[in-house]
Amino acid sequence: MSGLKSMSKDEIILKKDEYLKEYNNYKEMGLKLNMSRGKPGSKQLDLSNELLNGLKNFHALNNIDVRNYGVLDGLFEAKSIFADLFDIPAENIIICGNSALNIIYDTFARLYLFGTLGEKPWGKIEKVKIICPVPGYDRHFSICEEFGAEMISVPINNDGPDMNMVEKLVGEDDSVKGIICVPMYSNPSGEVYSDEVVERLAKMKTAAKDFRVFWDNAYAIHHIYKENKLANIFKLAEKYGNEDRIYMYFSTSKVTFPGSGISLIAASEKNVDEIKRRMSVQTIGFDKINQLSFVRFFKNADNIKQHMKKHAAILKPKFDMVLETLEEKFKDDKICSWSKPDGGYFITLNTYDGCAKEVVRLAKEVGVILTEAGATHPYKNNPKDDCIRIAPSYPYMEELKIAMEVIAVCVKLATAERLLSIQQ
Amino acid sequence: MSGLKSMSKDEIILKKDEYLKEYNNYKEMGLKLNMSRGKPGSKQLDLSNELLNGLKNFHALNNIDVRNYGVLDGLFEAKSIFADLFDIPAENIIICGNSALNIIYDTFARLYLFGTLGEKPWGKIEKVKIICPVPGYDRHFSICEEFGAEMISVPINNDGPDMNMVEKLVGEDDSVKGIICVPMYSNPSGEVYSDEVVERLAKMKTAAKDFRVFWDNAYAIHHIYKENKLANIFKLAEKYGNEDRIYMYFSTSKVTFPGSGISLIAASEKNVDEIKRRMSVQTIGFDKINQLSFVRFFKNADNIKQHMKKHAAILKPKFDMVLETLEEKFKDDKICSWSKPDGGYFITLNTYDGCAKEVVRLAKEVGVILTEAGATHPYKNNPKDDCIRIAPSYPYMEELKIAMEVIAVCVKLATAERLLSIQQ
Repeated sequence: MSGLKSMSKDEIILKKDEYLKEYNNYKEMGLKLNMSRGKPGSKQLDLSNELLNGLKNFHALNNIDVRNYGVLDGLFEAKSIFADLFDIPAENIIICGNSALNIIYDTFARLYLFGTLGEKPWGKIEKVKIICPVPGYDRHFSICEEFGAEMISVPINNDGPDMNMVEKLVGEDDSVKGIICVPMYSNPSGEVYSDEVVERLAKMKTAAKDFRVFWDNAYAIHHIYKENKLANIFKLAEKYGNEDRIYMYFSTSKVTFPGSGISLIAASEKNVDEIKRRMSVQTIGFDKINQLSFVRFFKNADNIKQHMKKHAAILKPKFDMVLETLEEKFKDDKICSWSKPDGGYFITLNTYDGCAKEVVRLAKEVGVILTEAGATHPYKNNPKDDCIRIAPSYPYMEELKIAMEVIAVCVKLATAERLLSIQQ
Repeated sequence: MSGLKSMSKDEIILKKDEYLKEYNNYKEMGLKLNMSRGKPGSKQLDLSNELLNGLKNFHALNNIDVRNYGVLDGLFEAKSIFADLFDIPAENIIICGNSALNIIYDTFARLYLFGTLGEKPWGKIEKVKIICPVPGYDRHFSICEEFGAEMISVPINNDGPDMNMVEKLVGEDDSVKGIICVPMYSNPSGEVYSDEVVERLAKMKTAAKDFRVFWDNAYAIHHIYKENKLANIFKLAEKYGNEDRIYMYFSTSKVTFPGSGISLIAASEKNVDEIKRRMSVQTIGFDKINQLSFVRFFKNADNIKQHMKKHAAILKPKFDMVLETLEEKFKDDKICSWSKPDGGYFITLNTYDGCAKEVVRLAKEVGVILTEAGATHPYKNNPKDDCIRIAPSYPYMEELKIAMEVIAVCVKLATAERLLSIQQ
């Protein structure tokens, strides 16, 4: 087996011409495929169409008319379902609006404007640093950047962020105020944080009293190949007296309808009290009609889990297609590697160093839009330029097959170009 | 006619005993009436029940599937309806979530955290002062207080805030950064700002470059007795080159369902660009299913106006009842006065100085909950203690009649007590 990397310059040039021919064929096809975001496909959306049938009876528990004002922290019956789903007491949950991202942003805004539990507002501190496991979620990075927090990249291993690094960072420097992460099927590389990692996050000594874990549990129940378990960080934090450290977020955007579901923040009693007090200035309450529709549709946590199996059944062939195409296209020449997640929405493709941007550019030229290379890293700056996020959920199977073939040839072409430019 | 105020001490004591007897009768009735907030009554909510029937076709203009992510600033067809309703170009409108209050809060948060159009963040300035026409809306005051803005009370005349005072304040002091107000059927006293007042707000020279008018047009179309017209502040502001000064807010909370409708912010092109850029960090987009439901239900601005006439038909008898009961109860002894608004949600009752808190306390003791006295003023501090907000919309007619009788006797009793305490 003679791979691209061990070829002579002339051999690579020959290969490159071959790849270029294949690539140019796609150019002529006039493709228009967008794989840039983790959008559910329309078959997934159809699973919840019953929600569009409306609400016959608009009275919730305690005869609350959901059509009118009130109930700042959300319907009790909605809290109950999530309490079951996450093994968190209902009183530690606040049901919010249509976007968990918005609650994360709002939490940052409150920390910067007002501080938390008597500590100085982050906006009044010289420097705030947030630990960002990489690769990570671009919208998390955007929030940190918007608020002027300095992002510190920490690599993710198979079991979660490098905890030796994390512990060192938080232990020494009281300007390190938080870590923002997706602990289950991490966006984009799919890792599930191990029990040990979760416990170390809950236990570690932090120089900052108001250190916070922004626990974006977006894919908590989004299993595809295997049902992984994530340790309950609240129970562990409580064990070490650090229960105020944790803010957990979740939404039904990838359970029912993206941007039209409901969301939640879960936190300690003290945090919940503080958030509700601040929230009461911001709003009279979130959309309770939507909350009750959710409750009527699912009834209980178990039905949500069953519903997620239907999502998995639609997503699995798409993930299979991505993984199998990569396997086939690179079986003879392992010039790239990729993640094999058990769930979530993404697969990461690791290219030869310095090729990711070029792959994305090449793919775009023939009509396949990928997430911007670099988006997986703080400040859009991946020094190795080797990471591409693939989002298989949105395209139809036929489109996905073509898109993956395009990506494969783009990887080959970019690698050949890169090797040639190095040899020169 | 011998009124309470001109009576001797002994005469007042006799009257007081009479009032007390009547008051005690109510005590025995075990009333439970809440008139504290401007909540629509259930017949008003019924007007929009068709909205609960769901959404058959989930594709908006340009084939947008409203069940999926996207469209940060809202559906074009929703913007179009509001563009018509308010005579504002659609491109100056951003459709948001379920609460205009939340957008006002978010605007404050952005101004404090980031500043606007290149000016210093308000959070980095020694002092920020906001002009608050009084009486005013308690939730506006809460937002100012939460952000640490110093509220400057300016009295409202029949045609709006005292503009001589406003112009003097904003002209001299660059820490005066804004005015927050309800220009149409002002909450709680019902004034409609005159064309002259609106023009002066649009025209006035402000020491602060980033002075902002928070134009909470909550009751823009909520006519009851008469259809008043509010001048278009955007057109006037543009005339004087001050178009960036205005943020207008509106929601359908009192058109369809409180807290489950949609809301908007309207602003100049520069402001809209800035808001969208900041908002894109906060959220992927608001609930488009709700936006499309709204569009399908109303179809056009004219239908909204027709719909508001149905609200008026339900509200008018309630406002009549309040006004007639006050008229009757105080026709022989004018110890208090009240507003006679053409629309909106409130009537203010002006008591004899130093009586408002006591009236609210007395009413509460017999089961009639009113808005906290003082809530109509910044810091809950009404130096004259003479202002009570009456919200007639929520109770049934029979309840409202009793509530008003209770309030009347409480006013009489409190006034008698007050006069006695002064005479001592």
